[in-house]
Amino acid sequence: MSSFADRLADACRRRGNPVVVGLDPRWQQLPPGLEPDGEVNPWRRRAAGYRAFCRAIIDVVCELVPAVKPQVAFFEQLGPAGMVALADVISYARQRGLLVIVDGKRNDIGSTAEAYADGWLGNDSPWGGDALTVSPYLGSDSLEPFVSMAVQRDTGLFVLVKTSNPGGGQFQDKIADGRQIYRHVAEHIEHLSTKTVGHCGLGAVGAVVGATYPEQLAELRSTMAHTWLLVPGYGSQGGTAKDCAAAFDARGLGAVINNSRGIIFAHERKEYATKFGPGRWLEAVAAATNDMIAQLRAETTVGRLSGS
Amino acid sequence: MSSFADRLADACRRRGNPVVVGLDPRWQQLPPGLEPDGEVNPWRRRAAGYRAFCRAIIDVVCELVPAVKPQVAFFEQLGPAGMVALADVISYARQRGLLVIVDGKRNDIGSTAEAYADGWLGNDSPWGGDALTVSPYLGSDSLEPFVSMAVQRDTGLFVLVKTSNPGGGQFQDKIADGRQIYRHVAEHIEHLSTKTVGHCGLGAVGAVVGATYPEQLAELRSTMAHTWLLVPGYGSQGGTAKDCAAAFDARGLGAVINNSRGIIFAHERKEYATKFGPGRWLEAVAAATNDMIAQLRAETTVGRLSGS
Repeated sequence: MSSFADRLADACRRRGNPVVVGLDPRWQQLPPGLEPDGEVNPWRRRAAGYRAFCRAIIDVVCELVPAVKPQVAFFEQLGPAGMVALADVISYARQRGLLVIVDGKRNDIGSTAEAYADGWLGNDSPWGGDALTVSPYLGSDSLEPFVSMAVQRDTGLFVLVKTSNPGGGQFQDKIADGRQIYRHVAEHIEHLSTKTVGHCGLGAVGAVVGATYPEQLAELRSTMAHTWLLVPGYGSQGGTAKDCAAAFDARGLGAVINNSRGIIFAHERKEYATKFGPGRWLEAVAAATNDMIAQLRAETTVGRLSGS
Repeated sequence: MSSFADRLADACRRRGNPVVVGLDPRWQQLPPGLEPDGEVNPWRRRAAGYRAFCRAIIDVVCELVPAVKPQVAFFEQLGPAGMVALADVISYARQRGLLVIVDGKRNDIGSTAEAYADGWLGNDSPWGGDALTVSPYLGSDSLEPFVSMAVQRDTGLFVLVKTSNPGGGQFQDKIADGRQIYRHVAEHIEHLSTKTVGHCGLGAVGAVVGATYPEQLAELRSTMAHTWLLVPGYGSQGGTAKDCAAAFDARGLGAVINNSRGIIFAHERKEYATKFGPGRWLEAVAAATNDMIAQLRAETTVGRLSGS
């Protein structure tokens, strides 16, 4: 198997786009008919709904995009039943040829971080993710086990640098030693990524940088030349294709752009609601995915990726 | 039900000590005879071992200490089977009268943070924890859903402030606006805790501060007068009872001290190995717990808690 960085580059080239579909199921918004009638336990009923919902989305998007990003929080919200569904969704996505970035924002000190890395990353792990999102607050020694595991198992991690939420700056933007905390984190990540660089010129240690902060996205693209960026905040949170343009290098590589609600609940968006409605929600998923791909290809260097 | 802060104060008073037993099972260190012979799936076999191991510890410590702290990473390392075991362990600990602080160091942006809070906290949640550890990197809006849930469900959270690991200072100790990042986090937590204060004078929003940094522990105790401190790093990581002294207020309240490996794997420690050995590992658990209680009562204001 090749490195995660190279597998991600190959997948972007093969699909001709860098779109990650965020799998963030919420039971209040599931299209009708997905939860089984016979199941009385509410967690198991919802978990079965999430499984059916995510599998159906995967069937649509596996031909269109390089990767999906299940958000662990929504599965975890259902207790153990949700976690069983999550494992199934990860495994199914990989079967269908998608890379799976597990969005768990995990971390802990040394040997505990190792347990997270061992559990989430790689073919032989019980969850089997290709990459995991990780929080940096605990410092370099908490990141080491994830980096070792990434190298050992050809997997990856994406460390939070500049998050997409309005309050993200409260600590991330504080200035110490002449620059913001997020820049200190970014420097450390770029250092780790440089040490794990693959054939594509990018490393196993990526960074999460929100599309809602386009200036910082541009700045971090130029200072983190060997680092894959995972960019949330597109669509529902306000980020546009234009905002993402600076995230890519000249080849159209270097970043993947996540969209969750804007794709998976596209049947609720006014652009698609009248055309498709809840009954044809999967057609809305396909249309929203294709529209996002077209927008990125029009506004960024992504158009230079060949595509299938 | 009374607030989490008051329930924790009552539990410390009832037991006469502030010891939290960290449930960090590791299959390489389990005493013999806990994994079922008939189970061929390695994850389910280990998960069954973790369940038996944690339940046996809970049976011993439920009469001695106010709370346990299961570390989610070790259960998560076993995949869904581990998560099923974790739910059982949490539920069993609560049945036996212990408060359960779930150590997950979770967080995410707004509505995703809400999913974590909803899933982990309170009697009606599928996991049923009394409190959850939370990471602050995403800022105030990511903490809000946990605080709301804590108030609504009489539960609590402990936000990472100054962690016990050697590399914790890399970002936490950076100085911005005249003081370290961890102090900025601490100020925000104290503000949130003051707004949620219970009869005991402490609030629902606690802080994680390592015993391995006794000076910062003293400083944070004085600047965070309304905040419960959860103190890891005792024992195996080097923290002593003397190091923890400054964490308590004059009543012997204000902090709970966690010990994981030093208690649950006490049979491997030289103080207990010859006396008990693996065959009598539960007696080693009881002895290590009682010794830690005695040390804290001798060296800190904890001796002023009445005890049963």
